Amino acid sequence: MASPLKVAVAGLGTVGSGTIKLLQQNADRLTERLGRAILITAVCDKDHSPRDYPVDGYRWYDDAIRMVAETDADVIVELIGGAEGPARAVCERALAAGRHVVTANKALIAHHGMALAATAEANGVTLAYEAAVAGGIPIIKTLREGLIGNERRQVFGILNGTCNYILTGMRETGREFEAVLAEAQALGYAEADPSFDVDGIDTAHKLAILATVAFGCTLDFKAVHVEGIRHVSPVDIAYADELGYRIKLLGIAALTDRGVERRVHPCMVPAGAQIAHVEGVFNALVVDGDFVDTVVQVGRGAGERPTASAVVADIADIARGTRQPTFGVSVRHLRPLPAAPMASHRGAYYVRLMVVDRPGVFADIASILRDNDVSMEAVLQRGRAPGEAVPVVMTIHETEEAAMVKSLQQIQALSWVVEPPRMIRIELI
Amino acid sequence: MASPLKVAVAGLGTVGSGTIKLLQQNADRLTERLGRAILITAVCDKDHSPRDYPVDGYRWYDDAIRMVAETDADVIVELIGGAEGPARAVCERALAAGRHVVTANKALIAHHGMALAATAEANGVTLAYEAAVAGGIPIIKTLREGLIGNERRQVFGILNGTCNYILTGMRETGREFEAVLAEAQALGYAEADPSFDVDGIDTAHKLAILATVAFGCTLDFKAVHVEGIRHVSPVDIAYADELGYRIKLLGIAALTDRGVERRVHPCMVPAGAQIAHVEGVFNALVVDGDFVDTVVQVGRGAGERPTASAVVADIADIARGTRQPTFGVSVRHLRPLPAAPMASHRGAYYVRLMVVDRPGVFADIASILRDNDVSMEAVLQRGRAPGEAVPVVMTIHETEEAAMVKSLQQIQALSWVVEPPRMIRIELI
Repeated sequence: MASPLKVAVAGLGTVGSGTIKLLQQNADRLTERLGRAILITAVCDKDHSPRDYPVDGYRWYDDAIRMVAETDADVIVELIGGAEGPARAVCERALAAGRHVVTANKALIAHHGMALAATAEANGVTLAYEAAVAGGIPIIKTLREGLIGNERRQVFGILNGTCNYILTGMRETGREFEAVLAEAQALGYAEADPSFDVDGIDTAHKLAILATVAFGCTLDFKAVHVEGIRHVSPVDIAYADELGYRIKLLGIAALTDRGVERRVHPCMVPAGAQIAHVEGVFNALVVDGDFVDTVVQVGRGAGERPTASAVVADIADIARGTRQPTFGVSVRHLRPLPAAPMASHRGAYYVRLMVVDRPGVFADIASILRDNDVSMEAVLQRGRAPGEAVPVVMTIHETEEAAMVKSLQQIQALSWVVEPPRMIRIELI
Repeated sequence: MASPLKVAVAGLGTVGSGTIKLLQQNADRLTERLGRAILITAVCDKDHSPRDYPVDGYRWYDDAIRMVAETDADVIVELIGGAEGPARAVCERALAAGRHVVTANKALIAHHGMALAATAEANGVTLAYEAAVAGGIPIIKTLREGLIGNERRQVFGILNGTCNYILTGMRETGREFEAVLAEAQALGYAEADPSFDVDGIDTAHKLAILATVAFGCTLDFKAVHVEGIRHVSPVDIAYADELGYRIKLLGIAALTDRGVERRVHPCMVPAGAQIAHVEGVFNALVVDGDFVDTVVQVGRGAGERPTASAVVADIADIARGTRQPTFGVSVRHLRPLPAAPMASHRGAYYVRLMVVDRPGVFADIASILRDNDVSMEAVLQRGRAPGEAVPVVMTIHETEEAAMVKSLQQIQALSWVVEPPRMIRIELI
């Protein structure tokens, strides 16, 4: 049997603890599968409070940089988190020192993945990050290896369990965003400061990574168009149901003739689509390849145990001697494809206006849409309340985003429009 | 750049042609990803009719055995099909000669996978078969690599697109099995002799392979309990809808304290389950692991292009130098776990009787169930027709299969039961 693979774990929070528990509990099975043992030699965390798993056999460091400098581990597992600071420094130094790095850090990879991958390549070691995208779902392996034969045209999905939990809760109970967010916070599904999740930033980190792995384009987090779910209201969710849609926060990356689209925003998806049935904290990914057609993967996108499953899969690949370019091709082959501007995106739209109920409203709307070459599919106005504010809902045939935005600006300027219009993109997936 | 990987393709039918087209069309991208070219050097097929792709550059053989003997290819791609005959001989000889083998042949792997894997191991080469299970879905890679850290407790799914197409068609149109089968045959979704598909044998081949990869148990095709879909009737599909279920042909493998369950039969699954929404020719797999929890994968389970995607993924792994034990552990580590007998299976059941409508019927049924310790959950009898045959539908709480079967035998013997009872297992997944 080959010699053990030595591993040092930086960060004993949720994912770090899960990783150590997995390596302890399933050690025999892993050794049998890999033909060698995975041996934790060192751990690092400033917090020395007791853990619910044994740590006696590991050399304990307070300082991750010092651990990297002193350890003889083959692999540094970075589970500190954050795009900068110690997490970044640990990864940079470990790779430069010729040690493999496994991380669950989506912010770090989204912001510094290209530079880190170049360092890994230069030093002949692996930078692995399966756990950074969609937790337990092996989407990086699927894209990079399982679907390697395909030209990938599109990858999209539900990438943030917190947002999906909130949207599911809003739909099931009819409550407002704030109420369901508070519940999610109480249950530990949302952070005290929820903005990384609910404003779409976490999804954008993951989407930037996915786009690069799927299309072999350079990593460009700043190119992601990001909108969160704070503006989704129960009335829009109810209208979506009535129109045969579900509202999901999607990250969507597509290879178009205008360049690479990377966008994160609430979407209406057909109620019959696979992804519409992915509820609560689950994540889902849809990959569209020229030979395989569509592959869907659903699973837990976060949490101690599912994320540990992904971290250990990366460690196991290193133990087996498997070598993959960080993003599917070597860094120098990543293509600097242009980013498709959101203004030139073409798609269908749901629009909700709050208008004073009086004659002539539809005529004004219709002429603005006509003048912008925007074509209405359907319009709904339920109930009458002459002189009062009522919702008017429209669906719009495929049109250019810029024309849609301009139309809504002009509509908003009309005297009888009493609230900013709400617009949700319809994705006919 | 490393030297090209040389490949010889035996069998230029649907999958063979798809594989060659993929390797031709996406050659540049594959070379960039792999850092080396994949070069087809020889092909083999008795049928010399013109293909819709160029074959000029390949040495053409009529005899696959001769091709294996003469070629200098690194990889033999076996796409002839069938558990015996030339397909088996080609794989045996190629592996014995130290050549890697990639195959889409589920029957061959289900029947002879252990012996072939042992030959591969002895000769230090790869035997790869991603395309044998669920077409384009990378389920073997997912189980063997992506979820390597997990103790797998269960894997199940829709593994035959023909059956799923027929069941979907029956539900959507209310037609009988034979009518939808004839339509599927006309459309090319079912073979002229459909028994491999509709009698569950194809699903059983795939399930036997999945059980071994998931649990590390010895491969035992004969241990699979197999029932097909010929007995599923429109009335059962309608009752399933009413009770909140969908009928799917599932292959289910589970690690239980009674041994390994391997069963293929029609199931009622909750209408809200992910797998209930997998329609038509799509396949779906659900894996249950101790850390990752549940992962679902959906995609095209057959066809020229999706299957080619899986074949090429296996070739790419070989090109990259990735080495995996055929079934996740070396053959000598596969555990000879006992097969759990179907008679001791525990589950819930749907039962439909055709009975003469007269007093005392329910009392007779109830006492038979009581005497066999079988507990009824609900009973439905719609409409009255005194003295005539009417359907009576029951759902049964979790019970032992043997007690259920005995109860149905006793019920069938009653004078007022006019047809053999129909039983469909309910899976609360």
